[in-house]
Amino acid sequence: MRHRHRVAIVGGGFGGLFTAKQLARADVDVTLINRTNHHLFQPLLYQVATGLLSEGDIAPPLREVLRKQRNTSVVLGEVVGIDLDGRHLTVQTLDQRSEIAYDSLIVATGASQSYFGHPEFAHHAPGMKTIDDALELRGRIFGAFEMAEREPDPSARRRWLTFVVVGAGPTGVELAGQLIELSRHSLRGNFRRIDPAEARIVLLDASPTILGAFPESLRQRGTRDLQDLGVEMHLGTVVTGVDERGVETNSADPRLRRIEAAAKIWAAGVQASPLGQMLAAAAGAELDRAGRVKVEPDCTLPGHPEVFVIGDLMSLAGLPGVSQVAIQSGRHAADTIRRRITGDDTPRPFHYRDRGAMATIALFRALATIGRVRVAGFAAWVLWLAVHLAALIGFRNRVFVLFNWTAALLGGGRAERVVTAQQVFGRHAMAAQAAVTRGEVPRV
Amino acid sequence: MRHRHRVAIVGGGFGGLFTAKQLARADVDVTLINRTNHHLFQPLLYQVATGLLSEGDIAPPLREVLRKQRNTSVVLGEVVGIDLDGRHLTVQTLDQRSEIAYDSLIVATGASQSYFGHPEFAHHAPGMKTIDDALELRGRIFGAFEMAEREPDPSARRRWLTFVVVGAGPTGVELAGQLIELSRHSLRGNFRRIDPAEARIVLLDASPTILGAFPESLRQRGTRDLQDLGVEMHLGTVVTGVDERGVETNSADPRLRRIEAAAKIWAAGVQASPLGQMLAAAAGAELDRAGRVKVEPDCTLPGHPEVFVIGDLMSLAGLPGVSQVAIQSGRHAADTIRRRITGDDTPRPFHYRDRGAMATIALFRALATIGRVRVAGFAAWVLWLAVHLAALIGFRNRVFVLFNWTAALLGGGRAERVVTAQQVFGRHAMAAQAAVTRGEVPRV
Repeated sequence: MRHRHRVAIVGGGFGGLFTAKQLARADVDVTLINRTNHHLFQPLLYQVATGLLSEGDIAPPLREVLRKQRNTSVVLGEVVGIDLDGRHLTVQTLDQRSEIAYDSLIVATGASQSYFGHPEFAHHAPGMKTIDDALELRGRIFGAFEMAEREPDPSARRRWLTFVVVGAGPTGVELAGQLIELSRHSLRGNFRRIDPAEARIVLLDASPTILGAFPESLRQRGTRDLQDLGVEMHLGTVVTGVDERGVETNSADPRLRRIEAAAKIWAAGVQASPLGQMLAAAAGAELDRAGRVKVEPDCTLPGHPEVFVIGDLMSLAGLPGVSQVAIQSGRHAADTIRRRITGDDTPRPFHYRDRGAMATIALFRALATIGRVRVAGFAAWVLWLAVHLAALIGFRNRVFVLFNWTAALLGGGRAERVVTAQQVFGRHAMAAQAAVTRGEVPRV
Repeated sequence: MRHRHRVAIVGGGFGGLFTAKQLARADVDVTLINRTNHHLFQPLLYQVATGLLSEGDIAPPLREVLRKQRNTSVVLGEVVGIDLDGRHLTVQTLDQRSEIAYDSLIVATGASQSYFGHPEFAHHAPGMKTIDDALELRGRIFGAFEMAEREPDPSARRRWLTFVVVGAGPTGVELAGQLIELSRHSLRGNFRRIDPAEARIVLLDASPTILGAFPESLRQRGTRDLQDLGVEMHLGTVVTGVDERGVETNSADPRLRRIEAAAKIWAAGVQASPLGQMLAAAAGAELDRAGRVKVEPDCTLPGHPEVFVIGDLMSLAGLPGVSQVAIQSGRHAADTIRRRITGDDTPRPFHYRDRGAMATIALFRALATIGRVRVAGFAAWVLWLAVHLAALIGFRNRVFVLFNWTAALLGGGRAERVVTAQQVFGRHAMAAQAAVTRGEVPRV
């Protein structure tokens, strides 16, 4: 008996999830393998880090999203081996290891933060890629205000109240804007010794401009908006060191050589997932400078037409690492598989349709570019809200995010401000008190 | 110049928070010291552990709750020393230590889980006292279903699908009911290899009855309801061992001597906060068997009328460790301080007004006792919902919990199901990948 065509998808981000959805009615068996139990609506991750949304609001369980798609199963685990000749993956979850055979493979494991050869920076300046990152940053951001309130020494207090965002792409810009709103509005009246509005928000980037992917006119508008809000921007400034108490830069201005700051956030660059290297080792695939896999025009691995590399892990014609590329390349791979099943093996190149870009800077202020149209200010913000709400509501059961979110945005309230006892007092202190220990040994 | 009367409150739970609120209009300076930045609406903690509510829904920031109360400041920190003669506290936050002087002191640090002399159980069977606990349990509960789906061995799969709740008080009963709903309804259709409805929910208690504090008729009704739902109850059964893979009991039934279960939850007993021992060492205060401080009828420490011990840390006339005792004893302490300021030093005994008890067992099923009235079933559930909604909405900005919560309760959806990568793969694996490390070193 012949089995149905088996599709293995590695990664549950935009690329992997939309590939799976596109295969909903195909005559295939789909297995989606992901390191966590949830998809992540990454464009709003910074709102979890700053207390506007809860993790559940932007991280729907993959099983729930794909519940009704009966040809698809979800596996929680990490791919630790790829056998391209034998066409199977080795997947590990805790001490559990198993093999998953495939006829078509989609590799969509994306990218993580890049520290440009300085992985040691990560400890002091977490990135913005996962729910773990966002919860860690939430603890550091709200914790810094708490420590400032406790601190008698003015220079140390200043350090607690200085927030450095490294990287002025959309994530960095949006986060800087949120930190302004948080300190100027949400926390108003919360403290007795400090004025949270005195917080210094520093945005650094090595390139001479913010939002490099946006057209010049919008970049200028964005720069002006951020300046109006009170963000301190230093462009063309390379971060050369990060430690517990601050960052060091190559700035010509001696006052910026060292910036004392307790909370640092790294939003400066990406490096492709280690699965790129695995593919390079297994198939001699070529990687670009960022570690992304160079693919054929139809998104397949050279010499392996049954293997697709999509999204942020794909290196093709200079396409950027944005969610629309991931979604569209995923759909392209799914469509190719569906055509092949019907006997149509002709390779068709992937054509990316640029739907534009958006960045929100503050409440009622955003930037958007759609084709040749450029919008800024309130109109762009309404557009941004509509697009993101529609996307979020696309996941089942998320209608109520609308109420929550609109209320939080308009009301200035931030309900998700939990700093856990672990975050304040550290794991070891907690363990010593025979309290919960999370993550130190394999889960049971 | 004389300073205003200074009130230091240690603990931001029901006792501490309601003491502070009761002093809103008093001519005093209030300092509220808490280990975390939030109050915790503990009666709904089990709903965070089971994915119905987010941590922000039940843990409003203390600063936000007390924002408009200008005579009150909030300090994030841990009390590491009490000088009763010098009337000051030593408070530590990270490496920051300072002293807080007081004229009146309220100690309201409550209780943590008790493992009856077996602190080593805590690692395998976390309690239900903090947000850390609830998030840890959320990861273990949803993670267990994930592992069951992955597990080829039937007996191991059975172990992943067995959930043991130790302790059949309100928390244990409510959690067992939620685990039934979660496995029978919320997760329906989510898995491909396992049927989550086959999960075995085991409720153990050393005493011969559930809900010991409730009248006999309601206990019987509760027992019947839990049996109808499919909870496997073993009363009069003492847990004698807990390890990674299960629990051991003293049961006469050999099949219950060892129960193989991956996820265990401990809701069996409380031990008073270590501040009780600190007061015993400093003032020779007498502690009861649970470590609670024996107080005068007006809730003051014997020999120290300026020190009040309230709530779960207070041992007085056999009053139970419930939120109403904490709230009312806190208000009594606040009223006593207010009277003293006006020159009225006459001690007045604390009279507890029992407002009854409630426990919800499932959607539309609860038990309630108010004075001599006993209600069960749907009417009790409506009452339960109304009381808890009113309490939650009492905190600013929490109106939208109503929408969220009602929708989640009625729709059977559980939006908060995030299992973080750290929870799945452990801290060290994450650290090795140069990802965020949370809590291992002092925060910056």
